[in-house]
Amino acid sequence: MSEKVLAYLTENREQLLNKLNEFLAIPSISTDSAHKQDVQAAADFIVTYLNDIGFEKVEKQETAGHPLVYAEYNGAGPEAETALFYGHYDVQPVDPIEEWKSDPFKAEVRDGRIYARGSSDDKGQVFMHLAVFEAYMKTEGKLPINVKVCIEGEEEIGSENLYDILHARKEQFQADFAVISDSGMVAKNQPTILYGLKGFTGIEIKVTGPNHDLHSGMYGGAVRNPIMALNHILASMKNVDEVITVDGFYDDALPLTDAERTLMAGAPSEDFIEATGVPETVSEKGYTPKEHTMGRPTLEINGMYGGYQGEGTKTIIPTSAVAKITCRLVPGQDPVKIQELLEEHVKAHTPSGITVEVKKEKLSAKAYKVEPNNPLITKAAESYTKAFGKETVYIRMGGSIPVVEWIEAIYNIPIVLLGFGTPEDRLHSPNESFPLDSFDKGMETLVYYWNKVNEK
Amino acid sequence: MSEKVLAYLTENREQLLNKLNEFLAIPSISTDSAHKQDVQAAADFIVTYLNDIGFEKVEKQETAGHPLVYAEYNGAGPEAETALFYGHYDVQPVDPIEEWKSDPFKAEVRDGRIYARGSSDDKGQVFMHLAVFEAYMKTEGKLPINVKVCIEGEEEIGSENLYDILHARKEQFQADFAVISDSGMVAKNQPTILYGLKGFTGIEIKVTGPNHDLHSGMYGGAVRNPIMALNHILASMKNVDEVITVDGFYDDALPLTDAERTLMAGAPSEDFIEATGVPETVSEKGYTPKEHTMGRPTLEINGMYGGYQGEGTKTIIPTSAVAKITCRLVPGQDPVKIQELLEEHVKAHTPSGITVEVKKEKLSAKAYKVEPNNPLITKAAESYTKAFGKETVYIRMGGSIPVVEWIEAIYNIPIVLLGFGTPEDRLHSPNESFPLDSFDKGMETLVYYWNKVNEK
Repeated sequence: MSEKVLAYLTENREQLLNKLNEFLAIPSISTDSAHKQDVQAAADFIVTYLNDIGFEKVEKQETAGHPLVYAEYNGAGPEAETALFYGHYDVQPVDPIEEWKSDPFKAEVRDGRIYARGSSDDKGQVFMHLAVFEAYMKTEGKLPINVKVCIEGEEEIGSENLYDILHARKEQFQADFAVISDSGMVAKNQPTILYGLKGFTGIEIKVTGPNHDLHSGMYGGAVRNPIMALNHILASMKNVDEVITVDGFYDDALPLTDAERTLMAGAPSEDFIEATGVPETVSEKGYTPKEHTMGRPTLEINGMYGGYQGEGTKTIIPTSAVAKITCRLVPGQDPVKIQELLEEHVKAHTPSGITVEVKKEKLSAKAYKVEPNNPLITKAAESYTKAFGKETVYIRMGGSIPVVEWIEAIYNIPIVLLGFGTPEDRLHSPNESFPLDSFDKGMETLVYYWNKVNEK
Repeated sequence: MSEKVLAYLTENREQLLNKLNEFLAIPSISTDSAHKQDVQAAADFIVTYLNDIGFEKVEKQETAGHPLVYAEYNGAGPEAETALFYGHYDVQPVDPIEEWKSDPFKAEVRDGRIYARGSSDDKGQVFMHLAVFEAYMKTEGKLPINVKVCIEGEEEIGSENLYDILHARKEQFQADFAVISDSGMVAKNQPTILYGLKGFTGIEIKVTGPNHDLHSGMYGGAVRNPIMALNHILASMKNVDEVITVDGFYDDALPLTDAERTLMAGAPSEDFIEATGVPETVSEKGYTPKEHTMGRPTLEINGMYGGYQGEGTKTIIPTSAVAKITCRLVPGQDPVKIQELLEEHVKAHTPSGITVEVKKEKLSAKAYKVEPNNPLITKAAESYTKAFGKETVYIRMGGSIPVVEWIEAIYNIPIVLLGFGTPEDRLHSPNESFPLDSFDKGMETLVYYWNKVNEK
């Protein structure tokens, strides 16, 4: 019965791509308050689309930040499974803008890829689900399953309001399982089931010294340099063996079993050097890059600044310096405890002559692992294989999707991570893109999956 | 015979201050190419003024960068001493502009101070010399000494072209002694003779990792973070005892003698905590802040940046990170050798997985010390004391004036550093200012000094 649906997607491919481009053209950057109206516009786009498809109770719920879009489809009847479909319509900032080969908000197809901010993370993948729903309704007049749609606009800023909403509206949102397409495959056209994700947390450190920039000749030798002080603090958090040297950081991290290390060694992976252009890879002493990215916690400085950044030289001792740090956590680690350990470490390593302020990242998520043998997972794997014509692999990933942990904690249902991105997508970077292959075969996968879900 | 000259300065004070304000209104920021024309305008202001006063051979010499203004006065006759008067008309950038209480290029008098960029460093002090020349010419019809004026527009960017000009025009510029007012007094209204200055050099370090910003979840654990790598490099250059840990850095530094340490302990000094707002002072282990600022070398990070600096969080591993470092040197240290030691240290402490690039600061100056008993120095001290009604003190300073080293090396003449700035002037910072007291008594000092110079 999938043929008509697949045919619809093929026949309407151009019109669907044009519609996707409209969606991608909205600069819904959630972290930048200047784009608040654009984020609203992206939510409105989805509301309109869901109404056109024929969803019920379509609603834009305003929050303290950006709105959440909710809708239901109950046409499959009480016997059918009900899926909670989660996605996000907000995107990352685009700086440095000068590095984009084409306008980040004017989608351009080059070499079989759609180039635009959000094409892969996550607008493109959200759109695929909506297009498949449209195809089912236009051809079969119904969907094989019931659906509850939950698409937020704050994923890139830590889903600040989603957690409370998932709690407050538990009864209404409750489903039999959840489906999320906000992840990737290990390689282009390699079906991949993600059975594990990392947790996440972070802090911002601000070091303040003199109350104004000082002449380095008049005061050098009398005051502590805030940038150097911050350097000492940061250098004390991770050594050159990439081992995190914050007391207690690894205490609760579940160790990688030999079995899992073997599985990881076997799992296909991109060539990190080719993908990033680094002269050589580095990873935690005693672990391979694959093991570290998939199964060991990380601590990264995402940004740092202080003093003069302009042309030429400015001989000052600056008034302050700031560093933004985030960590990716593994099963066993508690993000809140990790933040406390980081703060204690900073305080313990703060030299005299300056003051330090630690701001704790609001976002906090535990790591997640699902049972690979769950029939909802294996059915997804089968659909994947059928669409891509290749055996599905199972992996864990270094990324974090807080909502996965929250849905598990609040709704206690299996979560199927159906990701169609590829390692070359440049998420969060200039020239983000998404393969047309993933667009076509991904939608095909979803068509098969919705059919399979109800098969006993 | 000074009375008429002093009277002229008093009677014309308001008109002179208005003229100074015109000069300060020109945003002659030499490090910022956007202000190239403003730097020219500042040079033209001086050319016009020198012509109006009655100087000869007034000339604006163009260079690869900003012009140098030259002029001569030979009216005192062959018997009189000839002074080489050096100053600079360029200024530092004004960022962060939002911290200025008034427009940096619209001079405003508040609480007896002139607030404007360049009011103290060095436009204000250059103007005082010109005003005194004007007063002599308008009242006595002549100056007591012959003068060669050399005012550059590149002091804040390392006087890139001055060195070659001083060499090329040695015969024309040669004088019996040099006078420079580009420094300060240890305290407001405390006559101060600077008999020692620090040398100067610097490097810029750029660490490059991946060829684009990476998603910290997908690549954290496989690549070296350029900011963390730079942190390790920088933290290895100076320890928390403020001891510079670069091999050989102190080898050639002449040690402070007990006599000099006693002199420094006795020399009046500002309250560093009050002037900077730091919770406590820090200085090289084994030395007081006064000893370190006046007589020990320093290494400061003037600016550092890499990765995301915007609102909120961006979970990336950035492509690169940059740090700007400058050192202040003491007698005995060779700036070029120090740059090499810094570069070797950086190379030796660069971890794997990234590439590092060291750019050497073009500016390079050795430290300077003059003989305090030289009659040209003692006459300056007497003039100072007469004008300010207070005993003159002798100090060494942490600042660097490369031209001092060059004039000594090329012309082999004594250099008199007649500075009228104060510790509260906020050189190089927002809200730079200069006391009206220094303006009035400083000009009075110059009037006395030009008279004394010829006394046998």
